[in-house]
Amino acid sequence: MANAEAMRSHSELRECIDHCMACHRVCMETLADCVKQGGRHAEPKLLRMLMDCADICETSARFMMRGSDLHSRTCFACAEVCAACAEVCEQLGDEGMMKACAEMCRRCEESCRRMSGGVMPQPLNPEAAQRAADLPA
Amino acid sequence: MANAEAMRSHSELRECIDHCMACHRVCMETLADCVKQGGRHAEPKLLRMLMDCADICETSARFMMRGSDLHSRTCFACAEVCAACAEVCEQLGDEGMMKACAEMCRRCEESCRRMSGGVMPQPLNPEAAQRAADLPA
Amino acid sequence: MANAEAMRSHSELRECIDHCMACHRVCMETLADCVKQGGRHAEPKLLRMLMDCADICETSARFMMRGSDLHSRTCFACAEVCAACAEVCEQLGDEGMMKACAEMCRRCEESCRRMSGGVMPQPLNPEAAQRAADLPA
Amino acid sequence: MANAEAMRSHSELRECIDHCMACHRVCMETLADCVKQGGRHAEPKLLRMLMDCADICETSARFMMRGSDLHSRTCFACAEVCAACAEVCEQLGDEGMMKACAEMCRRCEESCRRMSGGVMPQPLNPEAAQRAADLPA
Repeated sequence: MANAEAMRSHSELRECIDHCMACHRVCMETLADCVKQGGRHAEPKLLRMLMDCADICETSARFMMRGSDLHSRTCFACAEVCAACAEVCEQLGDEGMMKACAEMCRRCEESCRRMSGGVMPQPLNPEAAQRAADLPA
Repeated sequence: MANAEAMRSHSELRECIDHCMACHRVCMETLADCVKQGGRHAEPKLLRMLMDCADICETSARFMMRGSDLHSRTCFACAEVCAACAEVCEQLGDEGMMKACAEMCRRCEESCRRMSGGVMPQPLNPEAAQRAADLPA
Repeated sequence: MANAEAMRSHSELRECIDHCMACHRVCMETLADCVKQGGRHAEPKLLRMLMDCADICETSARFMMRGSDLHSRTCFACAEVCAACAEVCEQLGDEGMMKACAEMCRRCEESCRRMSGGVMPQPLNPEAAQRAADLPA
Repeated sequence: MANAEAMRSHSELRECIDHCMACHRVCMETLADCVKQGGRHAEPKLLRMLMDCADICETSARFMMRGSDLHSRTCFACAEVCAACAEVCEQLGDEGMMKACAEMCRRCEESCRRMSGGVMPQPLNPEAAQRAADLPA
């Protein structure tokens, strides 16, 4: 690989780590605020999504910090979760915190999508979604 | 969804959580032992893989414990990492600890693969692999 | 150290890891259920505490799985958080899930307290508590 | 509490979160480099310490991001681990990476010590240290 390309890749990787860590933090802080506010900010789907997004961003960043061969796999999962989290945040229609969270998720999604190279995004398996929905409360 | 199917799904989900948590622990303990032993047990690729596998197993378990819609994404990543980790452990040709770790990774891979429904496994993007390999030491 | 004592210590350590991992899981699953139920099960203090307890249990288990010299520090923090989490769960006065969670927290607290050897429990610094309470929503 | 004091506390808290997250990252990246380099950079004690420090920094940051009452407990554990990690890094006598890691650990230790209010640092329990040392390889 040409040196210039390696440099570009390396700077993309660092940027993706930055985005994952920033997104992890925004999701954690937004979660804390949503829990305090209650009401429609404490909808199960939103709280779960913010926890999911914080966790996969952290794991995705760890893979990249370690220079792991399989970071494309965690980056793919991270891109998918960030996209879903952004959507849920946007649906609240808030300015301020929720909008900032959605924007950070979108930036992180974009970086992670680039890093996820060989993994094909697929429509969410309806069975898998159903399985989660069917869990007893 | 018929009740019998929901029950089956629910018990598969619990089993997958069990496997992820058991695999997380075996990888953490194998890592500790490998670091102590040194030599070919402390090859960078092996140590990185054990850390990767412990981290994604933990995150994958968390998604399922929360009943998250997107657990198929983290289960897919987890299956891929478990498969790669099992392979690296098997290559050492050890009996005992390394073999037990490989076997747990295979069981976890199998559960996670079933849970990952709609995500297509793809051959690892060669660019993504190269990117990691090119990182300055 | 006599061999019998080392064996005892080793089995205490394994038990403490078991308790931390079981407590991590119970807190994660209780959190998911509380979020679904809403109402007094979604009080900010309770949700935060369950997240805290899951996270420190996981970290405490990791230190012990690695055989880290400083596991007494994380076990001390874990014992303190488990005690507080048990108390918050008990205050709800529920049978079933909340009670089971409180009981697991108490068992984990006890194990961790034994492992935390040289660290003195102190009354929570009122300034530190105030600092958290004063954070803007 | 006077408003000025609350503001100061809040900015100290944010700084401590920054330090924990920066320290988490430096430890993860230093760990990856140590594993690659091998030799005296792959001493079990050093590798374990870097993993410990990364994990407790992450957990400590999560407690503070959530505004948890018990962040003093995790900050205390974090300060202790950061101090020990800095010492191990300094003992290698390297310029560059190891020195930068030690310096970040010291900054994080200092912030976390301030946040750990009511928890008394104690000399490490000799029994607890022995227990870890006695674990079978």
